[in-house]
Amino acid sequence: MIILGIDPGTKRIGYGVISRTPAKLKLIKAGLLKIKSRDDLGSIREIKKQVGAVIKKFKPEIVSIEKLYFVKNQKTGMRVAEARGVIISSAIESGLRVEEYGPNEVKASLTGYGFADKASVLKMVKLVLKEFDLDVLDDVSDALALAIIAGHKKALF
Amino acid sequence: MIILGIDPGTKRIGYGVISRTPAKLKLIKAGLLKIKSRDDLGSIREIKKQVGAVIKKFKPEIVSIEKLYFVKNQKTGMRVAEARGVIISSAIESGLRVEEYGPNEVKASLTGYGFADKASVLKMVKLVLKEFDLDVLDDVSDALALAIIAGHKKALF
Repeated sequence: MIILGIDPGTKRIGYGVISRTPAKLKLIKAGLLKIKSRDDLGSIREIKKQVGAVIKKFKPEIVSIEKLYFVKNQKTGMRVAEARGVIISSAIESGLRVEEYGPNEVKASLTGYGFADKASVLKMVKLVLKEFDLDVLDDVSDALALAIIAGHKKALF
Repeated sequence: MIILGIDPGTKRIGYGVISRTPAKLKLIKAGLLKIKSRDDLGSIREIKKQVGAVIKKFKPEIVSIEKLYFVKNQKTGMRVAEARGVIISSAIESGLRVEEYGPNEVKASLTGYGFADKASVLKMVKLVLKEFDLDVLDDVSDALALAIIAGHKKALF
């Protein structure tokens, strides 16, 4: 089973693809989608296209995406929410199962502490995936963490 | 040419369908899509389905949707932004042209005053469409106003 984790954003969307076997979770690919368009509609088109391409390439069964509760900058928050709508829409369209997790839920699940810092999350991502040389940006680490929590949850049921 | 105006929301989405001929803009249909689901993913599914059904039924060439700048309740604002992302996504998917207009732009275009009240907007909607008995909710009136501004703009070029 392939799981795609996505950390939504307006300019940068982190994604992480992992596979789940009964024995382990394994890294397949992780990266950053860069959205270049400066206007709203252009960004939506790009997000739709790039996320669609990732789904087509890796054929996940589950998309695990970060829930958005609150952001400091409201304007940015609304753009990110819009991006989330587009991403979830693309996932539903491809017939994928969508799961949502809040930032604290992801942190708690991985590190045991809901307010863990970025470094601790990446440390646990590396440990779980046994990718000790993994060196990724925060957005990508978060996306992998989202994929891992969906993978772990699946393993329990 | 058929134009669909949409006033996005979380629980209620106003829509207005008009046709544009060189001579006039004409009302085809206007109404409210009600989203019943209480959870985020369920709502997105419903929005996608219901907006998709309207597009399929009326086959518009243009979707004119309200731009979102600022809302008092941030949580609601983010849900509406998410809904916008889903709606625009559906329109792009159906190959439609998407146009966005801010609330003040719509008001100014219809009434000549960017801070006009809801009653003035509805009054102008009725006048432009020659539907003097039209009695619709604010969301629907706004959706028709969005369709009208897109129709007027088209007429100029």
